[in-house]
Amino acid sequence: MTDAATLAERVRAGELRLYELEDHADADTAAAARRLLLAAEPGVDLETIGEYAFPAERAESNVENMIGATQVPLGVAGPLPVDGEAASGSVYLPLATTEGALVASVNRGAGAIRAAGGASTTVLQRGMTRAPVFETSDVREAAAVADWVRGSLDRLADAAESTTSHGELREATPYVVGDSVFVRFVYDTKDAMGMNMATIATRAAADVIESETPASMVAVSGNLCTDKKPAGINAIEGRGRSVAADVVLPADATEDRFGTTPEAIAEVNTRKNLLGSAKAASLGFNAHVANVVGAAFLALGQDVAQVVEGAHAITSVEAREDGLYVSVTLPALAVGTVGGGTGLPTQSEALEIIGLAGGGDPPGTNGDALAEVLAAGALAGELSLLGALAGRHLASAHAEHGR
Amino acid sequence: MTDAATLAERVRAGELRLYELEDHADADTAAAARRLLLAAEPGVDLETIGEYAFPAERAESNVENMIGATQVPLGVAGPLPVDGEAASGSVYLPLATTEGALVASVNRGAGAIRAAGGASTTVLQRGMTRAPVFETSDVREAAAVADWVRGSLDRLADAAESTTSHGELREATPYVVGDSVFVRFVYDTKDAMGMNMATIATRAAADVIESETPASMVAVSGNLCTDKKPAGINAIEGRGRSVAADVVLPADATEDRFGTTPEAIAEVNTRKNLLGSAKAASLGFNAHVANVVGAAFLALGQDVAQVVEGAHAITSVEAREDGLYVSVTLPALAVGTVGGGTGLPTQSEALEIIGLAGGGDPPGTNGDALAEVLAAGALAGELSLLGALAGRHLASAHAEHGR
Amino acid sequence: MTDAATLAERVRAGELRLYELEDHADADTAAAARRLLLAAEPGVDLETIGEYAFPAERAESNVENMIGATQVPLGVAGPLPVDGEAASGSVYLPLATTEGALVASVNRGAGAIRAAGGASTTVLQRGMTRAPVFETSDVREAAAVADWVRGSLDRLADAAESTTSHGELREATPYVVGDSVFVRFVYDTKDAMGMNMATIATRAAADVIESETPASMVAVSGNLCTDKKPAGINAIEGRGRSVAADVVLPADATEDRFGTTPEAIAEVNTRKNLLGSAKAASLGFNAHVANVVGAAFLALGQDVAQVVEGAHAITSVEAREDGLYVSVTLPALAVGTVGGGTGLPTQSEALEIIGLAGGGDPPGTNGDALAEVLAAGALAGELSLLGALAGRHLASAHAEHGR
Amino acid sequence: MTDAATLAERVRAGELRLYELEDHADADTAAAARRLLLAAEPGVDLETIGEYAFPAERAESNVENMIGATQVPLGVAGPLPVDGEAASGSVYLPLATTEGALVASVNRGAGAIRAAGGASTTVLQRGMTRAPVFETSDVREAAAVADWVRGSLDRLADAAESTTSHGELREATPYVVGDSVFVRFVYDTKDAMGMNMATIATRAAADVIESETPASMVAVSGNLCTDKKPAGINAIEGRGRSVAADVVLPADATEDRFGTTPEAIAEVNTRKNLLGSAKAASLGFNAHVANVVGAAFLALGQDVAQVVEGAHAITSVEAREDGLYVSVTLPALAVGTVGGGTGLPTQSEALEIIGLAGGGDPPGTNGDALAEVLAAGALAGELSLLGALAGRHLASAHAEHGR
Repeated sequence: MTDAATLAERVRAGELRLYELEDHADADTAAAARRLLLAAEPGVDLETIGEYAFPAERAESNVENMIGATQVPLGVAGPLPVDGEAASGSVYLPLATTEGALVASVNRGAGAIRAAGGASTTVLQRGMTRAPVFETSDVREAAAVADWVRGSLDRLADAAESTTSHGELREATPYVVGDSVFVRFVYDTKDAMGMNMATIATRAAADVIESETPASMVAVSGNLCTDKKPAGINAIEGRGRSVAADVVLPADATEDRFGTTPEAIAEVNTRKNLLGSAKAASLGFNAHVANVVGAAFLALGQDVAQVVEGAHAITSVEAREDGLYVSVTLPALAVGTVGGGTGLPTQSEALEIIGLAGGGDPPGTNGDALAEVLAAGALAGELSLLGALAGRHLASAHAEHGR
Repeated sequence: MTDAATLAERVRAGELRLYELEDHADADTAAAARRLLLAAEPGVDLETIGEYAFPAERAESNVENMIGATQVPLGVAGPLPVDGEAASGSVYLPLATTEGALVASVNRGAGAIRAAGGASTTVLQRGMTRAPVFETSDVREAAAVADWVRGSLDRLADAAESTTSHGELREATPYVVGDSVFVRFVYDTKDAMGMNMATIATRAAADVIESETPASMVAVSGNLCTDKKPAGINAIEGRGRSVAADVVLPADATEDRFGTTPEAIAEVNTRKNLLGSAKAASLGFNAHVANVVGAAFLALGQDVAQVVEGAHAITSVEAREDGLYVSVTLPALAVGTVGGGTGLPTQSEALEIIGLAGGGDPPGTNGDALAEVLAAGALAGELSLLGALAGRHLASAHAEHGR
Repeated sequence: MTDAATLAERVRAGELRLYELEDHADADTAAAARRLLLAAEPGVDLETIGEYAFPAERAESNVENMIGATQVPLGVAGPLPVDGEAASGSVYLPLATTEGALVASVNRGAGAIRAAGGASTTVLQRGMTRAPVFETSDVREAAAVADWVRGSLDRLADAAESTTSHGELREATPYVVGDSVFVRFVYDTKDAMGMNMATIATRAAADVIESETPASMVAVSGNLCTDKKPAGINAIEGRGRSVAADVVLPADATEDRFGTTPEAIAEVNTRKNLLGSAKAASLGFNAHVANVVGAAFLALGQDVAQVVEGAHAITSVEAREDGLYVSVTLPALAVGTVGGGTGLPTQSEALEIIGLAGGGDPPGTNGDALAEVLAAGALAGELSLLGALAGRHLASAHAEHGR
Repeated sequence: MTDAATLAERVRAGELRLYELEDHADADTAAAARRLLLAAEPGVDLETIGEYAFPAERAESNVENMIGATQVPLGVAGPLPVDGEAASGSVYLPLATTEGALVASVNRGAGAIRAAGGASTTVLQRGMTRAPVFETSDVREAAAVADWVRGSLDRLADAAESTTSHGELREATPYVVGDSVFVRFVYDTKDAMGMNMATIATRAAADVIESETPASMVAVSGNLCTDKKPAGINAIEGRGRSVAADVVLPADATEDRFGTTPEAIAEVNTRKNLLGSAKAASLGFNAHVANVVGAAFLALGQDVAQVVEGAHAITSVEAREDGLYVSVTLPALAVGTVGGGTGLPTQSEALEIIGLAGGGDPPGTNGDALAEVLAAGALAGELSLLGALAGRHLASAHAEHGR
C-alpha cells in the first residue's frame, strides 16, 4: 500500500484514475490522496473535510471517490410525545440543518403538542414501489400484457421474492399508454426504505413478463414509481410509508402558545395551504413539511433526495369546540432503519436517540415507528409556523386598529 | 461558565431549558451537555456526533439546540467541463451522499461529457420569490388591490429594497382567488439564495400594500412562492435560478461509453421521462436530477429542503445527425454562494473545490456559476443513467434474440 | 290546460313560478309561455329556439324550465375504419360543432387511417366512479375506517348493488387525509355512462359505512371521483372507459397525405405534446383530443361537461421502420349508449349512424364500442393536426432554405 | 344544381366525394344527400337531424360535411342578479343540457343569490393566448432567442397586429426547455373569443422571430397556450377571461334556503373542494362549475371543448359574521359574443336573452359581461350544490342522533 502523496502523484502522472485509488491503498489514504489533488489549486483547503470521525471504509458502500465528509450542524427538538401504533413515548427529534430557526420552530411546535397531551399518529400504508416500462407492438398487445399482469400476481411474486429474504410483493398494477406498458410493483420492504430491494426484485419479475408475454422492458424505472420527482401518483396512491399525525390543542393553550385563536389559525391554513397551493398548481398543501423531513432525513441516514416525495403532504386545520385540530398527512415518506445511510456512525447514533436503530420486531415496526415520529415532527413544524403566522396577523390587525 | 455535566444536571433539575444552555456556557459545552442528557438512555452513544471538526459557535446561526454534527460521506465526480456564461472550465463536483453508486454514476456521465468536449450551460432567469396572501372583503375589492399592485411596482420596490443592500425587486405579480390576493414578489438576490432577504423585503412591501389598500396580510407566504412544495408555478415561472445544460455526444462515443445508440437512448427518454412522467401526473420529467441536486446541495451548503424545487426538471434527448443530444432544464434551482450553510467549514471548503466560495464579481455571478455547474452535474447524471438503461435494454434484447 | 299567453300572464302576475308551468299546461305550451316572457324585452326574438323538432315532453328528464332547443350544426367524418374489440367496421363519425375546420380535420385523419388499413382500438378498463367524503374524529379513527372499508367490499357491494339492476361494484378504495376519509367506488355500469347509478348505489353503500363505523358522510362526492374537474387521479386510474387507439401509416402514405416524414411528425409530437405539455404543468399530452370528444359527445347525447375528463389524453408518435406509428390513450372517457341525452331524437339518430343506439349484447359492449369509435376519432384528429403542423414546418423550412 | 337523391347516387358511384357536395348543390340539398347516404343502412333514420330550423348555408363556416343539426333541450335559470363591472342587471341564463336537474339546481342557486341581493362579479384579466414552439440548436441559442423576444415586444406587436383590426398583443413571454423555445403570446381580442385571431397574428409574429433569430417554428401551438387541455399554466396565468363572482347570503337566508348553516357549508367546501381536490391532484377546486359552463357555452355559441379550461375554477366559502360568503374564480374562461358559433340562429337568440348579442361598446365589454354572467351562473351552481350537500349532511346527522 502507498501513502497519499504517492498516490496523488500517480494520478497526476496518468497512471491511476481517481476512482481506482482504493485498489492501491486503504480508504482513508485514498481519500487523503484525493484531497491532495483537489487542494493543489490555490485557495483550496480541505482540512475540515478531512477531519471525519469514522474510518473511511465504513462509507465504502455509501459513496465513491470519497474525499472526506460533509459536517452538518445537528440539533434536537423535543421532547415530542408521540402516541402512535408503532411509535409510543416521548422523543427528541434529531434535525441536521444549516437553516437557522428551523429547530427552534419545531421545538415550539413540540411544546404545543406537549401542552395538548401528545400527537396521535398512524401508518396508513406501507409499500415501496418500482415501475418498469415495457414496449409492445401496439395498443392491443399492450392491453393483453396488462391483462396478463393482472392475472399473474402470484407468479410475479414468486420471481420477485426469490431475490430477497425480507421483501414481499403486494401489488403489480399495469398502466397502458399507447404501446407502452408500465407496471407499478409495490413491496413491503419492512424496515428498509427498500428501493434497491424493490429494483432487484422487479428485475426478476420483469424477466417473467418478458418471457411470458411479447413485452420487452425498456427501463426498470418508467417514472411511475415515482422516485424523487414530484408526482400525482405518489400524492394519491402513496409510496414508502403513508403516514398521518394530528393533535387537538385546547383554545386556551392556543392563545397561550400563539397569542391567537383556533379560528385564525384555520384561516391561515385555508388561505395559504389550501387556496394558495391550489392556485399554484401544487402537489403539496402544507406550510413547510419539507424542512422537517429534510433535516430529519439528513440526521437519520435517509436519502435526502426523497425529500421530494416527503413534500407531498396535506395539512388540515379545524377550529373545533374542544380547540384547535391540526393534522398532517404524508402520503409518500420513504424511510428505513436499516440499509442506506442508517449504518453510518453519526446517523446510527441519531437513530439511537429516537430508539429506532436497526430492524424492528416484528420486521417493519421500526420503519413504521420512524414514519410516525417524522409525521409528529412535521406536525410540530406545521403547528408552529401556522401559529406564528396567525399570531402575527392578529398582532398586525390589532396594531392597524389602534388596539 | 459551567461544565457540561453541571449544565445537564441543571436541566434535569428543571432549572434550565434545553435551549437556554448557550446562555450559561460556550456553544461546545452546551452541545456536550445536551449529548449527556440524551445519552442517559441505555444504548445511546453520541460519541461520533460529538466529534465535529469546527467550533460550535460557528454554527449558531445555522441550528438551535445543537448537539454536534451529522457527517455525510463526501465524494467528487469529474472533471466536469462546463462551458457556461458564468461558469467556465473543468471542475470536480463535490457530492455528499449516503447512496452508493450515485457518485460513480455522475462520474461516468462526466466522462461522457468530456468525450463530447464539455457541457454548455446557461442561466435563463434569476429571481427568488416570496408571495404573501392578503384578505379583502370581496372579489371586487380583491381586483382593485391587484390593480393597485400592478401599477405600484416602483413604490413596492422602494419599500422592499430599503431592507436590503443587495436585493432588487424585479416583479410583483398579483393573483386573485375569491377575496384573497396573492402577490408573488420576485427578487434578484445576487449571490445569496435569498429567501430570508426576500421575506424581509416582502414584509416591508406588504406594509405598503396594507397602508395603501384595504387588503390585510394573512401570511407572508401564501404558497405561491412556492417554497419547498412541488408546484406548477415553479415549473412554469421558475424560482431561484432557471438554468439549462446540454451536450452533443457523437454516435461513436455513445456506442463506446454506453454500448448503445442515440436512438435507443432517445427512446428510453421518451418512454420513461416523458410518457411515464406524463402518466404519473408528474411535475418532473427527468431520470434522477434530484439525486445530483440533493448530494451537491448537501456538499455545498445549500438548503436540502429545496431539492423539492430542484426536482422540477425536464430532460430532453434527440438522436441528431451529429450524435446524441441531451439537455436538462431546471426551472427552479435555489442556490447561493453566500449565506445559509455556505459559510460552514466543510461546505465552504467544498465551494472552494469548484472555485465558488463567497460572492461573485459582479454580484450574482457566483450564484449563476453554481447553478450552471449543478446543471452540468445533473446533465451528467441524466446521461449516465439513461445510457445505462438503454445499454441494458439493448443487451437484454440481444440476449433474447440469441445474438 | 291553458295557452301560452295566459300562462305567461299568470307568471307576470306572480301567480305562477317559471318552473311550475308544466303543472298547468303541456310541455310545449309551457316552453312557449317562457319564450313569450323572455321575448318581452326589445330586441329579443326566440323564434328559432322555438322551432325544435320533437315534443318537449321527450326532454322532460333532460332539462327544466325548457324554452326550446339549441341547434348545433352536425357533420360527419369518415368512413373511419375501426378494428376494435367491441367495435368493428367502418363508421361515419357524427360531430356537432360550431368551430369550422374541425370536421374537415378529422375527415383528413380518417382518410389517412383508411390508407393505413384502419385503426386498432381497445378498451383498457371500464368503471364509473363516485367518491364520498366522510369525517371522523381523528387520524387513528380515519385509518380504522379505511381498514374496515378495505375488508368489507362484499358488504358494500351488496348494499350498492341492491339499488341497481345493472351496475356492479368493482372496487372501493379508501384514501385518508387527516380526519377525512374518501372512498372511491368504481362501478361497471355497462352501457350507461352511469353517474346517477353510481351516485345512488354509493349512497346505499355509504349508509353501511355510517352504520358500521364511526364515520359520518359529509358529501356523496368528495372530488376524488373526480367528476368534471381536471385531476391526476383520473389521468392515472381512469374513469368511465379507459380506451386507446393506434395506427401505423406507411412512410410513403405519410408523405402523400401530409407532405412530410414520420420523423418530422414525431418531432412535432415530442416538442408540442410532450415537452410543451410538461412545461405547461398539464394533465393532457395531446394536440386537440377535446375537440373531437366535445363534438362527438354533443352529437351522440353524452354529457358535454365530461369533455374535461376526455381531455386527459396522451398522444404518442414513433417513426418506425414500417412507417408512422401514432397512438392516443384516453384514460377517462365517460360514455354511454343508454340514459342521459342518448334517447333524445337527434342524438339517438346520431347513435344509429354508428350503429350503437341502445344497450349492447352482452350489456356494456355498446358502451365499449362507443369508446373505441371515439378513440379512433380522436386518433384521426391527432394524426391530421400533427401531420398538418409537421407539413407546414417542413414547407417553411424549405422556403427558408430557398429550396 | 342537383337534387339530393342524384347527388347521393353520384357519391355512391364514386364520382363525388362527400365533402364536395356543396360544389354541386345548395347546402341544404348537400346535407340531405348525406342523410340519404347514411340512412341507407337498416335501422338508420335521420329525420329529426334533418329538421333544423335555419338555412344550412348559415352554418358553412361552422361545420363541414353537414347532415343537419343536433338539437339540445334549452332551459333558463333565473332571474340571476349580477352586479358586475361590465354586466349589470338581472338575467335569465340560458342553459342547453341533456342532464336533468342541472337547470333546476342553478335556478335554486339563483334564488339564493336573489335573497342575498345579487352576485358581485369582476373580470380580473382579459387575454387569449397562442404559444408556438421553436427549435434552436442548443440551450445557449435558446436562451438568446428568449432574450430577443423579451426585448422585442413592439416589433412582435407590429407584426401580429398587422393581421387583425381588433386584436392587440399584450405580452409575449418566452419559456425555454432544452433547445425548444415556447413563446406565449397574449392578445386582447375584445368581444371575440379570439383563438383564430390569435393564431393568425401569432403566425405573423413568429415569422419575425424566424427571420431575426436562428429559431425555426415547429408548430404554431406548442401546448403552452394551453388550448383545451387541463393545464397548470391556465390555472395560474389565465386564458381568455379570468373572472370571479361572489355573494354573501345572510345566515337566516342560508337556513331558509338550505336548511343548514354557513359553517356546515364551509365544511363541505373544505373537505370536498379543497382537501378532496388536493388529494386528487386536481387543477379544479370546485363542485360542478363545468356543468354550468358547459350548458351555457352550448346555449350561447361558445366552443364546448373549452369547457376544459372553464373547469379550472376555485370555489371558496367562509362562515362570516354577516353570513355565508361564497366565491368562485374562473381563471380561464374562453368566451366571445362575436364569431364562432355566436352567429348561429338559436345561439344568437340565446345571447339576446342576456342582452349580449354582437360586439360591445367599447369593444370587449360584451365579452367581459358574458364572462361575468357565466361566473355568476357558476356561483349559483356552486351555492346550490354545496348547500344541498350540507343540508343533506345535517339531515342525516339529525336522523342518526334521533333528533
